[in-house]
Amino acid sequence: MRFFSDNAAPAHPKVIEAISASNQSSTAYDGDEWSQRLDAAFSTLFEREVRALWVSTGTAANCLALAALCPPYRSIVCHRDAHIEVDEAGAPGFFTGGAKLMLLEGEGAKVDAANVTTALDLIGKDVHQVQPAAISITNATEYGLVYRAHEVAALGELARARGLALHMDGARFANALATSGERPADVTWRAGVDAMSFGFIKNGGLNAEALILFRTELFDEVAVRRKRAGHLSSKGRMLAAQILALLEDGLWLQNARRANETAQLLAQAVPARLAYPVEANEVFLHVTPDEALHLRSQGFDFYDWRPGEIRLVTSWDQEGDPVERLAAAIATL
Amino acid sequence: MRFFSDNAAPAHPKVIEAISASNQSSTAYDGDEWSQRLDAAFSTLFEREVRALWVSTGTAANCLALAALCPPYRSIVCHRDAHIEVDEAGAPGFFTGGAKLMLLEGEGAKVDAANVTTALDLIGKDVHQVQPAAISITNATEYGLVYRAHEVAALGELARARGLALHMDGARFANALATSGERPADVTWRAGVDAMSFGFIKNGGLNAEALILFRTELFDEVAVRRKRAGHLSSKGRMLAAQILALLEDGLWLQNARRANETAQLLAQAVPARLAYPVEANEVFLHVTPDEALHLRSQGFDFYDWRPGEIRLVTSWDQEGDPVERLAAAIATL
Amino acid sequence: MRFFSDNAAPAHPKVIEAISASNQSSTAYDGDEWSQRLDAAFSTLFEREVRALWVSTGTAANCLALAALCPPYRSIVCHRDAHIEVDEAGAPGFFTGGAKLMLLEGEGAKVDAANVTTALDLIGKDVHQVQPAAISITNATEYGLVYRAHEVAALGELARARGLALHMDGARFANALATSGERPADVTWRAGVDAMSFGFIKNGGLNAEALILFRTELFDEVAVRRKRAGHLSSKGRMLAAQILALLEDGLWLQNARRANETAQLLAQAVPARLAYPVEANEVFLHVTPDEALHLRSQGFDFYDWRPGEIRLVTSWDQEGDPVERLAAAIATL
Amino acid sequence: MRFFSDNAAPAHPKVIEAISASNQSSTAYDGDEWSQRLDAAFSTLFEREVRALWVSTGTAANCLALAALCPPYRSIVCHRDAHIEVDEAGAPGFFTGGAKLMLLEGEGAKVDAANVTTALDLIGKDVHQVQPAAISITNATEYGLVYRAHEVAALGELARARGLALHMDGARFANALATSGERPADVTWRAGVDAMSFGFIKNGGLNAEALILFRTELFDEVAVRRKRAGHLSSKGRMLAAQILALLEDGLWLQNARRANETAQLLAQAVPARLAYPVEANEVFLHVTPDEALHLRSQGFDFYDWRPGEIRLVTSWDQEGDPVERLAAAIATL
Repeated sequence: MRFFSDNAAPAHPKVIEAISASNQSSTAYDGDEWSQRLDAAFSTLFEREVRALWVSTGTAANCLALAALCPPYRSIVCHRDAHIEVDEAGAPGFFTGGAKLMLLEGEGAKVDAANVTTALDLIGKDVHQVQPAAISITNATEYGLVYRAHEVAALGELARARGLALHMDGARFANALATSGERPADVTWRAGVDAMSFGFIKNGGLNAEALILFRTELFDEVAVRRKRAGHLSSKGRMLAAQILALLEDGLWLQNARRANETAQLLAQAVPARLAYPVEANEVFLHVTPDEALHLRSQGFDFYDWRPGEIRLVTSWDQEGDPVERLAAAIATL
Repeated sequence: MRFFSDNAAPAHPKVIEAISASNQSSTAYDGDEWSQRLDAAFSTLFEREVRALWVSTGTAANCLALAALCPPYRSIVCHRDAHIEVDEAGAPGFFTGGAKLMLLEGEGAKVDAANVTTALDLIGKDVHQVQPAAISITNATEYGLVYRAHEVAALGELARARGLALHMDGARFANALATSGERPADVTWRAGVDAMSFGFIKNGGLNAEALILFRTELFDEVAVRRKRAGHLSSKGRMLAAQILALLEDGLWLQNARRANETAQLLAQAVPARLAYPVEANEVFLHVTPDEALHLRSQGFDFYDWRPGEIRLVTSWDQEGDPVERLAAAIATL
Repeated sequence: MRFFSDNAAPAHPKVIEAISASNQSSTAYDGDEWSQRLDAAFSTLFEREVRALWVSTGTAANCLALAALCPPYRSIVCHRDAHIEVDEAGAPGFFTGGAKLMLLEGEGAKVDAANVTTALDLIGKDVHQVQPAAISITNATEYGLVYRAHEVAALGELARARGLALHMDGARFANALATSGERPADVTWRAGVDAMSFGFIKNGGLNAEALILFRTELFDEVAVRRKRAGHLSSKGRMLAAQILALLEDGLWLQNARRANETAQLLAQAVPARLAYPVEANEVFLHVTPDEALHLRSQGFDFYDWRPGEIRLVTSWDQEGDPVERLAAAIATL
Repeated sequence: MRFFSDNAAPAHPKVIEAISASNQSSTAYDGDEWSQRLDAAFSTLFEREVRALWVSTGTAANCLALAALCPPYRSIVCHRDAHIEVDEAGAPGFFTGGAKLMLLEGEGAKVDAANVTTALDLIGKDVHQVQPAAISITNATEYGLVYRAHEVAALGELARARGLALHMDGARFANALATSGERPADVTWRAGVDAMSFGFIKNGGLNAEALILFRTELFDEVAVRRKRAGHLSSKGRMLAAQILALLEDGLWLQNARRANETAQLLAQAVPARLAYPVEANEVFLHVTPDEALHLRSQGFDFYDWRPGEIRLVTSWDQEGDPVERLAAAIATL
């Protein structure tokens, strides 16, 4: 029973259908009708004009944005456990041409304005130390915590005051919104976010993420960087079609709600073992190696996060039965 | 009627089916059964052990290979009209970290050993001039010409003698083999090729190309570079499945033959206008701007290659009727 | 007798004295009094406010400027024989993070506006081809030709019209001005130059070049890039002191005049053999390999430029006697 | 009275003389007799064949070595306070093409094998996390602590066991040896060091550091990278001559001893205020901001290291009187 990662879930049937339905076209790259509809679709969602580009991975979406926001000789402030630090094989350094990540502590992989301020204040204002250019946050975080609009706004205000850009890794943005119930606009551009990756792959998509630019003037540069990074698919219509299929009728939010709700079910069944509050679709539990072994022997698949801690992730297609069985299995450990 | 690019063709129905059929899996990235079958499938095709990685574009396939073959401080010898020079937005410079392309002349975008030798001999052997590390050729070339095994072997021998690697951009490798009838092994590793991109997207695939490493020891480095470039799809099984669907039962060769044959039909109908011999699925014709306009007004879509010359590309799904109509239209110009 | 390169000449005695005289200081990097005087000294020379940074090589001066003028994903238009293309080991690609050089033809390594226009017009305006960001010219050129202000102005106008920056490699800027008699301002910023390297090393300096920014707002970025490239000497005062020693009392122009005059002497003695007009301190002669051997056997040292052509360079410390002896030796070949 | 930095000290008179004496040459770059003597001079010092290159800054020496030891997609393990992390403007990222620094804790900026092991063991062995390629240590450290041969050997053994290279930043290597009395060979290559920067600039040199390669096969690559980074001075003889002047007759050790001894004098006068043991030429003292102000008002110049802590650095030309006056001033605070 899969609790390993939402990455491993199948694509939603409507996504497969959309790929098939977009197969015929007379235009390559992003000249097709599906790609051309993205700007409008996301502008509606975000209640203002935005530019949107499809890319095929979250790493590409994050790092193309960061490259546009941070020159090679500056740094990006992020949490020590951020995906861009620990899970992208150094892609930020590659895409930016050598920019550094400046790592912060913070409970549940959450960056807060006070921590950022302290860190920034320690940097000597000279040419010897690398000066920051951007702050990057992940929503929901790598530990499944959700930023509320006011928290992002505090970071946005700080960023503006210090002349920094603000980037959001939204690989699980749907899960965050499904929990907070906030408007997409409130937790992003109204709170000061300049660019974000908007994740679909963990939420029913196959291989399409959206890179959203609130600073629309960055579009041309990012479009060139996308091509230069080998991410301009000649049949990009099938990436756009996936995104549109999930956006339409709110399928993306439905999917995320399903994943979140099953995570809640699990969390409520084993409250004493929770390592973090469960706010999205990730559940971190205190489980000994022996216990983990025992769970695996019963067919549960999950990730050993660190000694004594496991990570369980529910997906858009999560059925209740495995959750109940897992909850029961943990209860009897 | 589409003669603009094989890039714009639909994916083959079996490819769409394969994507759908690979949708369920319990493993992310390339741990799935489809991805795991690639090495064996290509090793069979190439009659020796090779390592194969899926990527989503030809640019990524080319440039990941080049980055493994050429350090940042050296250069890659290629034709002035090579795709890596004119159509990849500088991706070789990005992936390699600044390596140069050293551009050669040559009829029909073909690189020959004599030209390479002359160019290499002009480079001062010191630290002031950039020293070459690799030769890159495209087969079929950007003008639709096909390298035979003995031609590649001459370049392979030269490369070995000079300590250079040999790379093949095989975006239209299927079209080349469909024409030459040569064995994949003979025109690649037996002729000295170290790594190649093996194209499927222009030949019935949706968004999967294969990067083939004949120098199998490069696999680990390339796998890291793929991740670092944002090209490690979490649901990569659907890329592998596309490739397998085309490899099985020789669908890739059937598709290429269809494209080539219809290009021949067209070429034979208008021999006086041919700018280059037609050896694959591209037809370059001498056509004045006025004539081109006239053709377009009749519904034919194609690329203005340069003043007085147009490019027509047939695809795996090419039907005969538009070819006949185009031939007739050109004949009556 | 040295005609190999002005690079190999000694430093002027006043330069050595200046190094010695600046040895005592209480400040590191560029906080010292000599470094602090550079902006004013060059602002006076150029009749407007400029920012000036010392660096220790011409390659560093050129490439730091180019990195500030051209993003990684665009290109720099220059002559095929430009120093940045053939003599800097790919440094432009390194400093810019992968930008391309787009190479032009042109007599005597001179770039003219017509050639640039033709080349620019051939570039497809899309994301597939690399778009230019800057034009770089060398004055005096690698063949010793001198740009007059009106020639630079034509390029400057073109650059502005196309949204490109204009860079000048002034490794032999002194030699150019010594010949043209034009004002530094007229041939640089008034003609549209945005940044330049101002050479001293070939003209009596030891290891100090000046990087001059007419777009003064680039200073902070360039200062960081200088540090990041390992070019912020902790005792930079001795670089500044060299430059000041050569600027004061017009020593830089005196030195250049001496070199140019002796080159003229040589040129006038062997007019039939000249491969290019002699406008600065370089003389290119048609000389067979046998003749070259014969000259070398008499103690003359020079560079074999290409088969049948040699390069002779006079220096700031050029004495007349070797010139006369060389002229005589060539006359009797 | 200067206690700010050994960077700000003058060059030793013999160094200035050596520059002057090497001014005449007939060869550019590193073809001159001084440059050609470096390999032999350092091979003698290190009791085995080494290759040595001059460069003009410690940052260049460090980062050229690191670029040869670490590919762009891997990381370098170092202390959080290492010069390459906090004082080189991100140069390691620039020279390597995007490699990361992986930061360790450790008293006095010292890296020990246990800390490194713990950190390495936490890295997932997959393509998602950046894998290390090298360990870099600074000797003497940024806090003036000295590695003994056995300590380096423990790191060297660990590096070999893990397939990592070992780099030493020897900006104050002379100060380290002056204290430890160990043989250069024992604390470097015999202990597993692959490449090091050997500092002269803080120890009587003007602007010459040596990059020493114990893995001599790296020479060609490093020589190209040096040129490509704009660090191949055309009159490099004056860099080589500085180094030779300091190596000959053991002047480098004499200079370092003088600096260390005066630091000891100071340390012994104010033992209660020492933040770290004083093993080289740096003294870190607990001093309140008010006290610091008071000391400055008496003409003492130093660096505010962090709140409540100042750094005092003695130099090769340190006279005793200011040390005694400073000691007295501190005693009466």
